Amino acid sequence: MIKNNPLVSLITEAAQAGVQIVRQQFRQAGEVDEKGSHIDIVTKTDLASQAAIRQVIEAGMLKLGYTADQVGFIEEESVVDSVAEHTFIVDPVDGTTNFAAGIPFSCISIGYAHRQELKIGVVAEPFTGTVYSAVKGEGAFLNNQWFTDRRLNVEQKETKNWIVGAHLNGMDVVLEQFALYQKLYPQVRGERNIGSLTLDVCMMADNVFDVIFNRGCFFWDLAAAKVILNEAGGEIFDLNGEELQFEWQNPKKKYSLIACHREEIDHVLNLVSAT
Amino acid sequence: MIKNNPLVSLITEAAQAGVQIVRQQFRQAGEVDEKGSHIDIVTKTDLASQAAIRQVIEAGMLKLGYTADQVGFIEEESVVDSVAEHTFIVDPVDGTTNFAAGIPFSCISIGYAHRQELKIGVVAEPFTGTVYSAVKGEGAFLNNQWFTDRRLNVEQKETKNWIVGAHLNGMDVVLEQFALYQKLYPQVRGERNIGSLTLDVCMMADNVFDVIFNRGCFFWDLAAAKVILNEAGGEIFDLNGEELQFEWQNPKKKYSLIACHREEIDHVLNLVSAT
Repeated sequence: MIKNNPLVSLITEAAQAGVQIVRQQFRQAGEVDEKGSHIDIVTKTDLASQAAIRQVIEAGMLKLGYTADQVGFIEEESVVDSVAEHTFIVDPVDGTTNFAAGIPFSCISIGYAHRQELKIGVVAEPFTGTVYSAVKGEGAFLNNQWFTDRRLNVEQKETKNWIVGAHLNGMDVVLEQFALYQKLYPQVRGERNIGSLTLDVCMMADNVFDVIFNRGCFFWDLAAAKVILNEAGGEIFDLNGEELQFEWQNPKKKYSLIACHREEIDHVLNLVSAT
Repeated sequence: MIKNNPLVSLITEAAQAGVQIVRQQFRQAGEVDEKGSHIDIVTKTDLASQAAIRQVIEAGMLKLGYTADQVGFIEEESVVDSVAEHTFIVDPVDGTTNFAAGIPFSCISIGYAHRQELKIGVVAEPFTGTVYSAVKGEGAFLNNQWFTDRRLNVEQKETKNWIVGAHLNGMDVVLEQFALYQKLYPQVRGERNIGSLTLDVCMMADNVFDVIFNRGCFFWDLAAAKVILNEAGGEIFDLNGEELQFEWQNPKKKYSLIACHREEIDHVLNLVSAT
């Protein structure tokens, strides 16, 4: 656990406000609205969680002595983004489809950037109470009521023991994704599509997933998870194997990624490109 | 919750003995042994859970006045099966690969049959504390610390809102499975491969999954879940759309299945066979 960092404490408190809402509203009947198609949905829980998180952060930043114009937000469910000296990148429920269906895999994700440099990531999972957190340069940690806190460190494993985080991201890419997972299947222990990219990346930091492929993700899915994974020894790459760069000028940009141990990207690219 | 049924109470107690072991040993370093291949594994936790469950049931049945030769067991990790007047069908950890990798999605499954007729199913999920239970003719129920107990009842939904439980079951069938899921993908809200068939079936009873396909499952994966799903209005079919029949004479037989709402099987077969 990271101690004596007022921003980490504030972000964790904000994430817990989201956790409370997700737990209260899980498996309660609720409206599901389609955003672009029947696979892209939003619930009142996303909106309630986002509002609660923002309220905690805005009030907390004022208490810490910052002015309102120093604080900005990039949020999944907001139309207007505001990049400022201190910017919070918020996914109020990552895994909305899971949440709406009643699958207990989703999370609250809050990244923090100082002058457009990511510094802090906190991801809270409501169902087992796991919290992943990291500060750039200070390590990544897991906190859970069942365990003593531990520092996260990604290990390299034999390919045959890998678990693949296998997302499906829409009609324009899904045929290629099926072909990719079919090619990998005989070489690994398992492929899982659990439905929350953010949790997959955090679980990679904790040695659960060994490689993750995604072709339809956004800044708010990744901001916190990238700090956590980086501090544990993993990296989020683009499809060419370069470290993924976020476009701050374009907060709604859609990204494609490969995540793995920092030293495994060439091996992964070879696995994927082999015929 | 089913009350005043001593067999349900005993089976639930036995399942909780398994839950305790799974929770204690989750994310502890442990040996993983390969059974047939690198994708078919067993851990010391499977064995410890199975032994604990058996001990509770054997002692409890004696206390209830049954003799040892009236009690039989079919267990995933046993070589010898013993079908008796009262037979318990036990999966000590369904989702072993998840458990070993650190994915908090697995369960303890105990079915009970009187004279080879399935009567009771109890499935306990250690990570959120959910217990699914059913008695034939008396309904299926979900118990969880967050909720009031509720009776399970499978609803029919529009296909576009379905979540598919999409398992991958080994090299001999996986190409057909990829082709199937690729065909279904545009027609549904989502496909998930979460790694526990038993939990998927129980979650279908609770309206989470709407159709499940599996081509590599066993009696112990299904005995409890079938009672639960049946009592909620769903059914487990073979690939021809007939109710799946277990072969008691062949407890290690591998099955293929489609699970869905009892009235939806023809629709599912049409979806699957359409070119």
